[in-house]
Amino acid sequence: MRLVSFVAGASSCYGVVKNDRIIDLSKRMKFSSLREMIGAGALGEAGKLAATIEADLPLEGTRLLPPIPDPGKIICVGLNYHDHVAETGRKLTEKPALFNRFAESQIGHLQPMIKPLESDQLDYEGELAIVIGKAGRRINVADAMDYVAGYSCYNDGSVRDWQYHTTQFMSGKNFVGTGAFGPWLVTADEIADPTVLRLTTRLNGTVMQTATVDMMITSIPAQIAYISTFIPLQPGDVIVTGTPGGVGSKRKPPIFMKQGDTIEVEIDQVGTLRNTIENER
Amino acid sequence: MRLVSFVAGASSCYGVVKNDRIIDLSKRMKFSSLREMIGAGALGEAGKLAATIEADLPLEGTRLLPPIPDPGKIICVGLNYHDHVAETGRKLTEKPALFNRFAESQIGHLQPMIKPLESDQLDYEGELAIVIGKAGRRINVADAMDYVAGYSCYNDGSVRDWQYHTTQFMSGKNFVGTGAFGPWLVTADEIADPTVLRLTTRLNGTVMQTATVDMMITSIPAQIAYISTFIPLQPGDVIVTGTPGGVGSKRKPPIFMKQGDTIEVEIDQVGTLRNTIENER
Repeated sequence: MRLVSFVAGASSCYGVVKNDRIIDLSKRMKFSSLREMIGAGALGEAGKLAATIEADLPLEGTRLLPPIPDPGKIICVGLNYHDHVAETGRKLTEKPALFNRFAESQIGHLQPMIKPLESDQLDYEGELAIVIGKAGRRINVADAMDYVAGYSCYNDGSVRDWQYHTTQFMSGKNFVGTGAFGPWLVTADEIADPTVLRLTTRLNGTVMQTATVDMMITSIPAQIAYISTFIPLQPGDVIVTGTPGGVGSKRKPPIFMKQGDTIEVEIDQVGTLRNTIENER
Repeated sequence: MRLVSFVAGASSCYGVVKNDRIIDLSKRMKFSSLREMIGAGALGEAGKLAATIEADLPLEGTRLLPPIPDPGKIICVGLNYHDHVAETGRKLTEKPALFNRFAESQIGHLQPMIKPLESDQLDYEGELAIVIGKAGRRINVADAMDYVAGYSCYNDGSVRDWQYHTTQFMSGKNFVGTGAFGPWLVTADEIADPTVLRLTTRLNGTVMQTATVDMMITSIPAQIAYISTFIPLQPGDVIVTGTPGGVGSKRKPPIFMKQGDTIEVEIDQVGTLRNTIENER
């Protein structure tokens, strides 16, 4: 099942994509958001509803929001592929490097990614995002995949000069309009083994990053176990699982995204997230 | 006006402290939380109400929550006093080092601060917290103080070994039960000049940290201006403005907090936040 959050009229809605059309579940279920629906354990109910209903509106032309527009937590894993660690010149750490993104920095599929006024160093980071399906603390590695509701693509757009103002990444990872998330959430039942998924980032059609999920340094279950040691994970929380080598800022010469560029993050069995760059005015 | 969030029965309430008693505003105003009340610009209305009402319950014995239990963002400023930068052996940066705390890690005044199972390195960090009163992006330094709704004490309890797993501080700064916030929010109209406030941290009665707010490297208005450049500030957002020198982990020998210890953060004109340490079981 491919779940989307979208705008219809002045409302924020959610639904299921079927044959390039959207079934609007938000007018047929009692939950105010996809996050709430997942938290209520109603994915099965959603699936049954979707099987019996005619689609309401076309996917094309509908404004998609991030699949989870309002996560309680967005936790990003830094330096989680060997080739990316190498290109940054950093040392490997035993534990995952975590930083946060605020929900207000997110955009959906096909929405413009914003190059802020303050910088010319907007860079891409293609990543696999997982969405948590149920609450847990100190989740065991062996049980961790039971906590995954689904998968999506993420572009952890990074304003590099701001990211390196200090040792802490927050400021460069949280400019409004830089966290692209979508196009949809593919539920976990559809992906038997996420470790085989290939991720590819393309800038104006040229492949800039590619890797398979099994190349992660800290695996998805190990991320869930580590994070949930200190803080509970909740339904709708998002873990952005790290980017492979090939980021623009570490190329020689560096490549940064500029007005009109198209950036895509494609993941097997998930889909392709596409955004164009717009200068902020 | 001293604003509190508290528990009455099974409900989360908010109100005003007057003469060691609490006026419950949550049953007299239409807002579901202090955050919502502040966001609606209703501090004036709250003040008028409080002036005419008999107090409902005693402060003593009432379980206080963090003044804002549910901030949209909690942004902590690291390395913001010269003596603390020096004791960490780090270099000064021109810009503030920012990291986040999740709301689920917070506790209120007199609630136990939790030493987690996974570590014996729980340390204190006494800090002044500010709560944002109205939304803004790219706020000018000259206007920034207009965005402050009030002040409180914060103990940014830090699990040092986890904090240093990687370059990013998140894991050591977000254990459940480590972020103490309170006892109340003192509204900005009561503090003519926050730069003169003295902050003192005491462990079992012994002074461990002391500084005045004017000793900050990045001032409160400069923090607001910097943060709001990349992300909008919203009513109820909390900025935890940095800790002075004297943390336990940098002492020789290091001092970490243990079961039964009492840790206090006192700030002039604001109050004293007190918590005792409990081992997690």
